[in-house]
Order: sequence, then C-alpha cells, then structure tokens
Amino acid sequence: MNHRKRLDDLQNGRMLWQDPEGFCFGIDAVLLAHYASLRPGDSILDMGCGNGIIPVLLSVDAPEGIHITGLELQEGPAVLAEENVAWNRLEAMITIVRGDLKEASALFGRDRFDVVTCNPPYRRTGSGRLSYGEKAAARHELYCTLEDVIREASRVLKSRGRLYLVHLPERLAEICALADRYHLAVKRLKMVCSREGEAPSLILMEAVKGGRPGLAAEPSLIIYDRDGTYTPEVRHFYGE
Amino acid sequence: MNHRKRLDDLQNGRMLWQDPEGFCFGIDAVLLAHYASLRPGDSILDMGCGNGIIPVLLSVDAPEGIHITGLELQEGPAVLAEENVAWNRLEAMITIVRGDLKEASALFGRDRFDVVTCNPPYRRTGSGRLSYGEKAAARHELYCTLEDVIREASRVLKSRGRLYLVHLPERLAEICALADRYHLAVKRLKMVCSREGEAPSLILMEAVKGGRPGLAAEPSLIIYDRDGTYTPEVRHFYGE
Repeated sequence: MNHRKRLDDLQNGRMLWQDPEGFCFGIDAVLLAHYASLRPGDSILDMGCGNGIIPVLLSVDAPEGIHITGLELQEGPAVLAEENVAWNRLEAMITIVRGDLKEASALFGRDRFDVVTCNPPYRRTGSGRLSYGEKAAARHELYCTLEDVIREASRVLKSRGRLYLVHLPERLAEICALADRYHLAVKRLKMVCSREGEAPSLILMEAVKGGRPGLAAEPSLIIYDRDGTYTPEVRHFYGE
Repeated sequence: MNHRKRLDDLQNGRMLWQDPEGFCFGIDAVLLAHYASLRPGDSILDMGCGNGIIPVLLSVDAPEGIHITGLELQEGPAVLAEENVAWNRLEAMITIVRGDLKEASALFGRDRFDVVTCNPPYRRTGSGRLSYGEKAAARHELYCTLEDVIREASRVLKSRGRLYLVHLPERLAEICALADRYHLAVKRLKMVCSREGEAPSLILMEAVKGGRPGLAAEPSLIIYDRDGTYTPEVRHFYGE
C-alpha cells in the first residue's frame, strides 16, 4: 500500500493506480498491448509487468477464455498490479506473481504459455545516466539483460508460441541475433516514429518459437501528426 | 562480346553496357551505391558485381585513392563489367575478377578490404518462381546463400571494415543473426519504402567487423512522391 499513488482513467473501461514517484506507464506499453494479437484461450505471460498496465490493457475486448499472468520482481509495482487487478475486477483473468523473469522457466515450467509480452528495460547498464530504484530498473538492465528476456520467453513459450516485444531500434540487431540463438523467428516488425519522415524511436515485434525464417516488415506507426496531436491510429489506442 | 547489348547513359558522366536479355541493374544497386560511405584510400570489394554497375557508380565523385575490385562468377556479366570499366576509362580504379564469392577469402585473403558492397540474390531457392540463367542467379540463391555472402564479407574485411548490403526486409532477422555469428555489428539500418505510409520494400545496412552492438535506425527512404514521380532524394541519385 502506497500513500502517494494516484488513480488514472485508461479511457477504455479500466482504471489504473500508479505511483507518480515510481514507474508510470508510457506509450510503449500502450503500443505493445495493441500490437499483441491474442486468440481465444491463449495463456499469456507478461514479463516484468510493473503496475500491471499491459495485463490490464490486454483484458479490454479480450478474446474468450484467455488468462494473463503478470510477473514482477519489485514489491512496490507488484502490490500496485494486484490492486489494479482487484480494482478492475479482473481476478478471473489476471494473476500477478512476484518473481524474477530471469527464472521464469523455473517458476512456470517450459512450454507453458501461448504468448509472452514484454516491455523490458531498454538500456544496457553501461549506457546513459544510471540511477537506482524502481524507475531505473524499468529503464536500465539492472535486474535482467536482453538475453535473459529472450531466453526465458523462448523457454516458457509453447512451440509456435508468440513473443511480443517493444524495444529501441538500436537494439534491433542484438534482438534478432538472440532470437535466432533461442529458436525464435522474428515474423513481424513495425517501426514506430514520432513524426513522419523521422528516424524510428521504437520497434514492435512478434517472434514465433520454432517459426520459419522470414519476416513481414509492416508500415511504420506514426505517433504525432504534423500539428503535434496524436495520429488517429494512436488516438484510437487511447480510447478516442 | 555480345551482339544484344545496349549502352545506357547513367546521367553522371558514366555509361553502362547492359544485356537487355540478361541482368539489368535496378534501383537497389543505385540505392546501395549511394548508401555506401567511402573514405580516401579505401580498398573496396563488390561481391557479385554483375555488369559492374556498383563499381561504376562508386567511381563517381569517389574519394581520393580508392580502389574497387568487382568479383563476378558468370562469364556474360563479367565480360560486360570489363567492357564497362574500359569504356569509362576506369582501369586505374576498378579491377574485375572472375570468381566465386563463396571463395572470396580464399581468392583475396583475409583482412584485405576496408569496404565490401553486395547486392546479393534476395530469395531462397525454395521460394518464389524459379528459373535458371543469368537473371535467375541475380534473384535466387542459386550460386550463393546469404550465409556465404556474410561469412566471406566478414573474412575479407579488415577489422573495423564496413559491409554495405541491400536486401529484402523479410530477410532482416536472418541477416542480423548471421552478422552476429560472423562478428559483424549492424551499425546503420535504413528502410526503403515505395511510397510514404507503405511497408518497406528494401533495406539498406552498414555492418562493421568487430564493431560494438548498437545500431542507428535512420529515417526511411521514400522512392516515389504521391504523384508517382521519384522523390527529390532519388532523383538526385539519377543525376537530376
């Protein structure tokens, strides 16, 4: 329980408690949740779920019979995630588990999920300004590396299971090399650009365990129109 | 010598003999030649040079003291490439070598070039319609695979040498995985789209032998304006 927390309306029938001094979700979580393609009955693991933003977003208009497990190492966000599940009456669909994503396959077993989603920390610990605490752990690879994420995702996924990842373009080549090492074939890739004509600022990808090589590069997703407002595609994600 | 050949004006002070029934260069070769960043004194290998289009284009406004070797397996294109070097009086800058790119490191030795350029066949032999002959060899991996290209490029490059590659987006993940396997770090990546808002149709990349991980994803290159004419950036490549 946290006296600093505030309640945000996600504009889609869901509310989210966040800690303004801890990690608050960004557009990357929203983009990832909308990029993930779920099917009826899917069993889903969100690795490093923070305050539960991705499980809560995935629950909106979800296909029938899905179940989402949110895995979070840090106590503060994990407690908020549990509150968010309860507040939105999603206990039947979402389970929050305290634990380390580096050990996901030991915790849950191998070949266990149809889908893994992950909005991991983007930056190596050797790059950028480094601090400690909850925000820092969401940004820098303090508690897990890119290899941990991809290795554990591959292990917990069933054959043909799908990994959905949001990350920085600068890590793209590393992600592809690690995916290959852990038997994940990158099947879809979408560049996200702040504005048309700019360099991409994020990538969204789907990788399939045991899939055949060959990816579909999709049209870029543009966040802002020329007038500085969200594009219609992004406004739609925010419930407009 | 080939009675069917025709002479094309490249609009940049260079002319090119092509065989209209064999392989004629496409926009991919033009884009790659302009993407490659050359430095004074660079020693360059173009792997699978065909009729010599990339060496001839690289010779335009070239930095001082560069030398380009064009390697081509098939006799018809190799003969045309030699004619194109002579026709443009580029014998001092360009040498054409008949040989197999799969054996480039045996032919030239390891750690030999500052730059490798390659516009390889894009498609696996198991995919798409397959035929034989000169055009087919330029499109399908009849005589070399993606792994041959990346392995040999890495071997013939000096430490910190640069590979410039044009390919299909669908092969991107494989390229990154192979680059990693052969100690090449993808450092720049540019998506090429026919029109703004469309899915990319080509990728351009620079990989550095022994480079550190981390790539710069660049703004996409758009080929056609909304009115169907080349964009100013591409018109510039064609000498306008």
